[in-house]
Amino acid sequence: MSGSARHHSTSDASALPSIDHAERVRTIVDRLPSGDGCDALLVLDLTDVRWLTGFTGSNGWAVVRRDGATLGTDGRYRDRAVAETAGSGVDVIAEETATALEQRLVETLRGAERVALDASTTPHSRWTRLAAQAPLEPTDSSVRLLRQVLDDAELARIERAARAADAALTEVEPLLLATGDEPMTEHDVRTELEYRMRLHGADDRSYSTIVATGPVHGARPHHDATRRTIVEGDTVIIDVGALVDGYHSDMTRSWVIGEATPEQVARYALVAAAQSAGIGALAEVGASGVAAVDIDAAARTVLDDAGYGDWYVHGTGHGVGLDIHELPMLVRTSRDHVRWGNVVTIEPGLYREGFGGFRIEDLVVVTEDGPRVLTQSPKRGVR
Amino acid sequence: MSGSARHHSTSDASALPSIDHAERVRTIVDRLPSGDGCDALLVLDLTDVRWLTGFTGSNGWAVVRRDGATLGTDGRYRDRAVAETAGSGVDVIAEETATALEQRLVETLRGAERVALDASTTPHSRWTRLAAQAPLEPTDSSVRLLRQVLDDAELARIERAARAADAALTEVEPLLLATGDEPMTEHDVRTELEYRMRLHGADDRSYSTIVATGPVHGARPHHDATRRTIVEGDTVIIDVGALVDGYHSDMTRSWVIGEATPEQVARYALVAAAQSAGIGALAEVGASGVAAVDIDAAARTVLDDAGYGDWYVHGTGHGVGLDIHELPMLVRTSRDHVRWGNVVTIEPGLYREGFGGFRIEDLVVVTEDGPRVLTQSPKRGVR
Repeated sequence: MSGSARHHSTSDASALPSIDHAERVRTIVDRLPSGDGCDALLVLDLTDVRWLTGFTGSNGWAVVRRDGATLGTDGRYRDRAVAETAGSGVDVIAEETATALEQRLVETLRGAERVALDASTTPHSRWTRLAAQAPLEPTDSSVRLLRQVLDDAELARIERAARAADAALTEVEPLLLATGDEPMTEHDVRTELEYRMRLHGADDRSYSTIVATGPVHGARPHHDATRRTIVEGDTVIIDVGALVDGYHSDMTRSWVIGEATPEQVARYALVAAAQSAGIGALAEVGASGVAAVDIDAAARTVLDDAGYGDWYVHGTGHGVGLDIHELPMLVRTSRDHVRWGNVVTIEPGLYREGFGGFRIEDLVVVTEDGPRVLTQSPKRGVR
Repeated sequence: MSGSARHHSTSDASALPSIDHAERVRTIVDRLPSGDGCDALLVLDLTDVRWLTGFTGSNGWAVVRRDGATLGTDGRYRDRAVAETAGSGVDVIAEETATALEQRLVETLRGAERVALDASTTPHSRWTRLAAQAPLEPTDSSVRLLRQVLDDAELARIERAARAADAALTEVEPLLLATGDEPMTEHDVRTELEYRMRLHGADDRSYSTIVATGPVHGARPHHDATRRTIVEGDTVIIDVGALVDGYHSDMTRSWVIGEATPEQVARYALVAAAQSAGIGALAEVGASGVAAVDIDAAARTVLDDAGYGDWYVHGTGHGVGLDIHELPMLVRTSRDHVRWGNVVTIEPGLYREGFGGFRIEDLVVVTEDGPRVLTQSPKRGVR
């Protein structure tokens, strides 16, 4: 490691606008009792707990009642919980043993008539134990629904993450394209990208970087990088994002190594056209939103019409925030809506064993003034 | 990136002994009906699915019945599922939509009288939907219990992971100790370790590397690395592991930057003594195993007797394998046993805000011939 490389690591959360957790707690309190008549909300999903309180530890729960919110965690996280929730108005409870902490949870819920709890993320055995001691009501996560709309402080984190991925890709792209002279494996490309995102201000990668190359791996949308050496003629898909203070970015670019065949050029252009159509459709989002299926359809139709419908084996996109996959889901079967303040991916692709694949993906914030693309790496996959 | 660094990336799974998934399926089939009378086992936990079938995708289930095993997944993973389960004798089903895949699951379970399913990892809403269509019985994960005993092929992966972490730490330790001349942050240390583990043959890190330094962060056992610059006088805890073909390693070393005070020297020696006592206790494991609480007690007693009982705020260890935290749990409240073939950590520590902390951890395979330590980095934390 060179000293100069090390000194690129200058990013830190303190230079970012702070997130107003007290406001989030107030929003939830104001919704109690919510549509399903619940007078308490129990939050067990750790990403929901983080969104609500700021606490980032690996064990904890939050309860919201009309008089405010409580965070419970174990002794390992006592200091951290107090530090991270300062200013949120959340009361912190820390107990040394799991039994004592569970007892405190039951006490915190005492007197509530209906306790909303997300049934889709709570393990069945935990639900069963808790249901014996508190009047649980299965609910969609109301926190997860609120998480869909991102504020400026959250956008600042995602934009910084996107910049780190752009900077890393700028450095690694020439190495990738020179694989004929100095061989690179899929693993090498992933290793360099993830390392360089950190040198450019990311806390971490957003997810395990996908590097899918050649006629077999390139046809697998979720391929894990292997020691396969990338060679002339390969299609290459790189799906890479960074993490900044808990927030994710997400971007995909595709290439042909060496001179592209006319068939490769045509299929790349088709994916690019589908991707543009998907982003264009986000301009139609008005005050009441747009059905997510319509965004999916805008991209998909381009591929369908060209006879490649069955080469497009996944959805067009998803929300991004504290999780890499947030609501809304932009897929054929979605019932979600896309609204102002959503940050979503638009990522159509084509895949076929023997050919390989292409995917192009941008991260886009949907605003009253139209879509704004957050991922800025150039798209120069075929030459 | 230098070319020579890149060429260190020579590790790949094909050079490792292969894992016999067919044998694992036979073991489960032979246990049907198991003690609870179930004539089918449904596996939804993805790590359990991988252990049983070899499939590594992010969506899927496995069913074991008397006539064999079936793996279900979605269209994205069709090719990969077939490739990864070749030789296991597992039938592969792939369906494009979630609805169709769920229908195939219900069909696969048809006729079973009692279907064992792990209630601790299955979300409540999924349990409720499935229970309407199949006679589910909550069970401890029988797969997770089998996963505790590792075979030679699994040990080869863990040992390679441990070597990668050792090699990375060998390179980064001098940079850490020279932070007075060329400043390193916690984040820098983590970044370099995770990068270099990959250059030395790891597929990835085992978990987000812990770098906890100084009087505040060092007192938090599960601290996340920050941009704090490491300075003279700091205690430093580095908890680092690598991943090879899905298997984890786990190791912790501690240091004082610069010359240690007599108090630091004494406390470091105490942790080292507790850690030796924990490893020594593993020599007592005979054919019937040893209660995990006894291993925890062996390490804990050393700290308790020196008056530091309340500085030791976590358990002594845990199993390691396809997950970083496997059974058995070596904690005060454990009911588990430690047996031959287990790979466990021994990791006592001391933590106190104002002082910082020390932890020393090795990964140990428990054999008929006694404990064999897999993590080989030297322990030279104080000078």
